[in-house]
Amino acid sequence: MLHHAINDEALDIVFRAARTQNKWQDKPVSTAMLMAIYDLMRWGPTSANCSPMRVVFVTTPEGRKRLEPHLSAGNRVKTMSAPVTAIIGYDVAFPELLPRLFPHDQTAKSWFADPGHAERTAFRNGSLQGAYFIIAARAVGLDCGPMSGFDNAGVDKEFFAGTQIKSNFLCALGYGDPSGLFARSPRLSFDEACKIL
Amino acid sequence: MLHHAINDEALDIVFRAARTQNKWQDKPVSTAMLMAIYDLMRWGPTSANCSPMRVVFVTTPEGRKRLEPHLSAGNRVKTMSAPVTAIIGYDVAFPELLPRLFPHDQTAKSWFADPGHAERTAFRNGSLQGAYFIIAARAVGLDCGPMSGFDNAGVDKEFFAGTQIKSNFLCALGYGDPSGLFARSPRLSFDEACKIL
Repeated sequence: MLHHAINDEALDIVFRAARTQNKWQDKPVSTAMLMAIYDLMRWGPTSANCSPMRVVFVTTPEGRKRLEPHLSAGNRVKTMSAPVTAIIGYDVAFPELLPRLFPHDQTAKSWFADPGHAERTAFRNGSLQGAYFIIAARAVGLDCGPMSGFDNAGVDKEFFAGTQIKSNFLCALGYGDPSGLFARSPRLSFDEACKIL
Repeated sequence: MLHHAINDEALDIVFRAARTQNKWQDKPVSTAMLMAIYDLMRWGPTSANCSPMRVVFVTTPEGRKRLEPHLSAGNRVKTMSAPVTAIIGYDVAFPELLPRLFPHDQTAKSWFADPGHAERTAFRNGSLQGAYFIIAARAVGLDCGPMSGFDNAGVDKEFFAGTQIKSNFLCALGYGDPSGLFARSPRLSFDEACKIL
């Protein structure tokens, strides 16, 4: 029996028993919870500590109305009923902050002078941070409903105009109503996804 | 005081006290540990359960020699001394598996007919899974050393020839020697990275 560094209950909460929710209880999520998610997830590693993730938490009916037209049809009803939907974005202008975020090497900013490399780095590391965000939300006791089905360009124009921030994915947050769950989908076996050399 | 769903010790292990390691103890990592990482991280959510991450665990001197020429200079010595280095890749051919991975909707494969959309979906979700991998490795008691400094095309040719798998990042695994740690870099405050609407 393998020893785990963190207990089985915690592993269930963040990985094994957690499910993507499609229906939400009518129960609010406090601002303190949103801050607690960020205060945990920000410690997750990124390349040269570039930390490109940016988040807009949509918590009001007015905010949801701005989001609604950009959602794919299948994501509208559930997103309008979620207490919070986080727009997870990434900032392609992250190199500007590297002199502060990566104090070990003041040349780090110059590593990302190529715009394609900066975009790819922001997308990769912003996605890593998006996953830390999901795990952290579960760790503080929330359920998540991550979604890719929306018009990225429309969301960028509505929420990130005048910046170099691009939307990555959406993540509804709240307390799930298990009556909205799908049957759990299978996962690949170790041998299908991994090789040991 | 906010209640966390998982205990503070677990939060320290996966987020707050964990550090990217640069120096490794001479202590092996068992195959059972590698399998335990995968068996946890595979439950993390991906879009349409597409699960595009693929991993090659490099565990032998022969495997490390194949990896070495593709590493940036600053990553060579530490990677050669790590007991395991995982090459985290993503499979752009993931749509082929959707009829099995997303049984709810047998049309899911057709959503990714556009190669650019398939590539972007694989990169985003393979990166999410890469982050789940890091968290899961810490959760089973290992330290991580994730790295982006390597020649992706060279690694793809050496390890993924004849497939549509592309390398994403590397993650050394083992038991860190804290004498190799940098001082911890700062993170952005909530107000710098997040907005509540």
